[in-house]
Amino acid sequence: MSYLVSNLRKGVFRVIQPDSSGYWPSLLFDWMITSLIVLSVASVFVVTLDLSAAVRRALIGFEAVASIVFTIEYVLRIWTAPELDSERSPWRVRVRYVVSGMAIVDLLAILPFWLPMLLPGSMLGMRAFRLVRLLRIFKLNRYFDALSMIGEIVRDKRRELIGSIFFVAILMLVSSLLVYAVEHDAQPEAFRNAFSGLWWAVATLTTVGYGDIYPVTAVGRIFGAIIALLGIGMVAIPTSIISSGFLEHMSNKQSKAADTRKDEDTPIFCPHCGKRILSQNSK
Amino acid sequence: MSYLVSNLRKGVFRVIQPDSSGYWPSLLFDWMITSLIVLSVASVFVVTLDLSAAVRRALIGFEAVASIVFTIEYVLRIWTAPELDSERSPWRVRVRYVVSGMAIVDLLAILPFWLPMLLPGSMLGMRAFRLVRLLRIFKLNRYFDALSMIGEIVRDKRRELIGSIFFVAILMLVSSLLVYAVEHDAQPEAFRNAFSGLWWAVATLTTVGYGDIYPVTAVGRIFGAIIALLGIGMVAIPTSIISSGFLEHMSNKQSKAADTRKDEDTPIFCPHCGKRILSQNSK
Amino acid sequence: MSYLVSNLRKGVFRVIQPDSSGYWPSLLFDWMITSLIVLSVASVFVVTLDLSAAVRRALIGFEAVASIVFTIEYVLRIWTAPELDSERSPWRVRVRYVVSGMAIVDLLAILPFWLPMLLPGSMLGMRAFRLVRLLRIFKLNRYFDALSMIGEIVRDKRRELIGSIFFVAILMLVSSLLVYAVEHDAQPEAFRNAFSGLWWAVATLTTVGYGDIYPVTAVGRIFGAIIALLGIGMVAIPTSIISSGFLEHMSNKQSKAADTRKDEDTPIFCPHCGKRILSQNSK
Amino acid sequence: MSYLVSNLRKGVFRVIQPDSSGYWPSLLFDWMITSLIVLSVASVFVVTLDLSAAVRRALIGFEAVASIVFTIEYVLRIWTAPELDSERSPWRVRVRYVVSGMAIVDLLAILPFWLPMLLPGSMLGMRAFRLVRLLRIFKLNRYFDALSMIGEIVRDKRRELIGSIFFVAILMLVSSLLVYAVEHDAQPEAFRNAFSGLWWAVATLTTVGYGDIYPVTAVGRIFGAIIALLGIGMVAIPTSIISSGFLEHMSNKQSKAADTRKDEDTPIFCPHCGKRILSQNSK
Repeated sequence: MSYLVSNLRKGVFRVIQPDSSGYWPSLLFDWMITSLIVLSVASVFVVTLDLSAAVRRALIGFEAVASIVFTIEYVLRIWTAPELDSERSPWRVRVRYVVSGMAIVDLLAILPFWLPMLLPGSMLGMRAFRLVRLLRIFKLNRYFDALSMIGEIVRDKRRELIGSIFFVAILMLVSSLLVYAVEHDAQPEAFRNAFSGLWWAVATLTTVGYGDIYPVTAVGRIFGAIIALLGIGMVAIPTSIISSGFLEHMSNKQSKAADTRKDEDTPIFCPHCGKRILSQNSK
Repeated sequence: MSYLVSNLRKGVFRVIQPDSSGYWPSLLFDWMITSLIVLSVASVFVVTLDLSAAVRRALIGFEAVASIVFTIEYVLRIWTAPELDSERSPWRVRVRYVVSGMAIVDLLAILPFWLPMLLPGSMLGMRAFRLVRLLRIFKLNRYFDALSMIGEIVRDKRRELIGSIFFVAILMLVSSLLVYAVEHDAQPEAFRNAFSGLWWAVATLTTVGYGDIYPVTAVGRIFGAIIALLGIGMVAIPTSIISSGFLEHMSNKQSKAADTRKDEDTPIFCPHCGKRILSQNSK
Repeated sequence: MSYLVSNLRKGVFRVIQPDSSGYWPSLLFDWMITSLIVLSVASVFVVTLDLSAAVRRALIGFEAVASIVFTIEYVLRIWTAPELDSERSPWRVRVRYVVSGMAIVDLLAILPFWLPMLLPGSMLGMRAFRLVRLLRIFKLNRYFDALSMIGEIVRDKRRELIGSIFFVAILMLVSSLLVYAVEHDAQPEAFRNAFSGLWWAVATLTTVGYGDIYPVTAVGRIFGAIIALLGIGMVAIPTSIISSGFLEHMSNKQSKAADTRKDEDTPIFCPHCGKRILSQNSK
Repeated sequence: MSYLVSNLRKGVFRVIQPDSSGYWPSLLFDWMITSLIVLSVASVFVVTLDLSAAVRRALIGFEAVASIVFTIEYVLRIWTAPELDSERSPWRVRVRYVVSGMAIVDLLAILPFWLPMLLPGSMLGMRAFRLVRLLRIFKLNRYFDALSMIGEIVRDKRRELIGSIFFVAILMLVSSLLVYAVEHDAQPEAFRNAFSGLWWAVATLTTVGYGDIYPVTAVGRIFGAIIALLGIGMVAIPTSIISSGFLEHMSNKQSKAADTRKDEDTPIFCPHCGKRILSQNSK
């Protein structure tokens, strides 16, 4: 029997892993889960509309079905986890898997459904649950891997990005106090306190400019114009940092390729005996 | 006669091809078609104004003239298509041309004029037709080729761009639900449902900021400020991806040029013994 | 006397040329002209305020003084022009100078003052004159040369920039017709015709977002969100083009420096006789 | 005793210097000062709210405590300054330290507390003091050093940045006069004078777009659209300049690293004759 179970586990594992070899049951499973994630996230938005009781009931039904499917998926992933690493004991691999990022996202995605059943008295607010259900979108991460490069670049450049955030914070704090000092008397309602100034500074420096709050006095406008122009720097500096990160990433890949090429085609000759020698780049 | 027709076809082909050699009938034809495209696109906009009956009739007349000219152009291009490839059978080249992107654009540009005549009962809405007539602007593509480089770079970087779109989508969905949860009670009209939150999130993250919807509570503003600041990243990341694409494109061209130059420089001779020596760059 | 005049011309030329050697009369002259330009441009703005008759008269007086000083400067620059090129005949150099860009700017800067005196009947509008007087700011160009590098890069990349403008134009035209079709019935006042749609498209794609016009229907907002997100590309593409231009400029300078360096330190040896030979990079 | 004092000074110096070796009293001191700076800056904002007398008194108390702590820190830093440079006379090092940027920031951060006590008659406005107290945020600079790289890049590229500011200034001045000329008659209130045009030009070119002022006439909107599109260049050019600065910085670091690596790899030996040969990279 152990042999049958082992084979079944292998088969299930092959189906539920994100597929890259064109095995159709796996592709079908991937599509089903992806669709369910997208529909489930959409239902979180739809539920906030004014809906008839029938539609609302249908959504609750769909939510139950989706949660049960995600629960089965979660259980199967834990059961088949040992296939990820056949060298260690199955339970150790399972525990490792359970505490991994993707498995925690999977768990959080089903908790809002099971928790009220297990702890009926607690009755956590519906709204908080809605937000937790939105975390299901991160389940999609399993099928994408392009995000990781962006994350890596942000991590590489964190020192420069923190520097630019510090610069922005100083600019925002100084400008919000200044605009408050200048505009408070002219617009006591709009610039009620320094925090209103901060809200204005954010809207201006990020160039969002809702138009709910802006300077009206001559001094305030001169000052506002300076801040708006400095706001361009706020876009320019992080863009430059991230750009240089992307290019460093790209040139690292290229220089590796170049190193490989060099090894192949750099014959040099001994000036003493004239014979060809191994390139200085080979180790 | 076949000889005369063949010569005529060659002559017409030379005239209707986008010119790069300064042949004046071809230049004249290019300018005429370009002007007609621009005027025709402009008339799609002008027709939405409150116009007198006389002007409206003139525009309908112009539209008929333009459509007939574009139809003649379309027919001539199909007729002369065999000149593009003299090695294959003329009809095969014509069929190939008809299903090419540019020929489909040409066809779509004249359909809104001929379809109601051929199918008088159908009466497709005028507005839908107007949009189709706008497609004529893509006919200009024949005379520009700078767009292709941008398209190529976007295609090269599609993996990273999809990654950044995924990142933006998560940011937008999470922030719209959060702002809805925070602001719904304070502004039940503005933040009526989670989709209003989504509209706010798009306006804020893209830094458009119309000002029709924005947070007013303290928590909502703190949260809105964070989202507005993250919106800078939304500009920075795609800009960086496309920048690195442009630079990769540029460095590829340069390294090709450098390779060519190297290959030419290579044969060198020893000034002491006069023998040709292998360059260190040669394979 | 010719000798005296020649010496005087040399002296005057040295004073009125933008100084880079610290000759104090020249520095003084530069500062005086720069200040007069800045004050003159400022007065164009100040004159639109509600001013008392006395202030208005003072401004007219200042304008007369500035115009006369600029006229003297213009005459002196033409008189001393032969110093620019001692190899050609003085009058030829003068004619060349008069039709150069900087001299035309100098002439336009004084015309609004002299023209009404010479042609009293014409009475060109004051407002048009004000705009012409603003051209004086370009006189400052003589003292700056950093603008030229930016202009050069824009010229180098004009093919790509025109491609991106074509892309933007298509996006704007298509989106404005679509938004007009969708929103016209819901907001007949705001989206009165397709040109209102164009105004909305510009405000959205450039992320300015005044908030005077925006979609309110569900379909219009979905569509507006897509356009707003594409608007990010509109910032990203020109930024990338100009960035790659700057980097190409920079790497050109560096590779020139590197070539120079290479020539100095690339000794290679003949594999046949073992003697050191001249580098393959030397010509 | 001199020996004891000297040891005490060494110990205090080790505690108050920004720590990088994990010495816990120093880490504790750093955290305490950092928290006090953040709280002190926050209190500058909180004090502008409508507060009860009790809270207001608590804030004044906190401000007194913070000021006294910062004063003690200032005195200790001057006292221990000789540890920075043991080769010169202690008083010389102290004077040098007192006139350094960081020490001036430290002094300005405590002045608003001590000045009214020393000069009770002067009674400088509370608001001006608030702004000076905000300078405390620059005390954080001691614990960050990422800002310096950004500052360095801005300094390296100042010539290009000044060029782009000159370009922006011309664009802003010309467009503000033009929009004023076009819109003044249609909206005498909004476009009251040329300075209103300047406020509009800043809001549009920076893409902030508050929506308090915008063109309404057909000519004004055509013109406004052109300016809004040119505004994209205003973001693109400084971003490109700063990007190229970051990349130059990065490639400088890389080429230095490469030089170092090359120098280390260089000694190679001929496998045929065993003699050491000069690397082609060595000078």
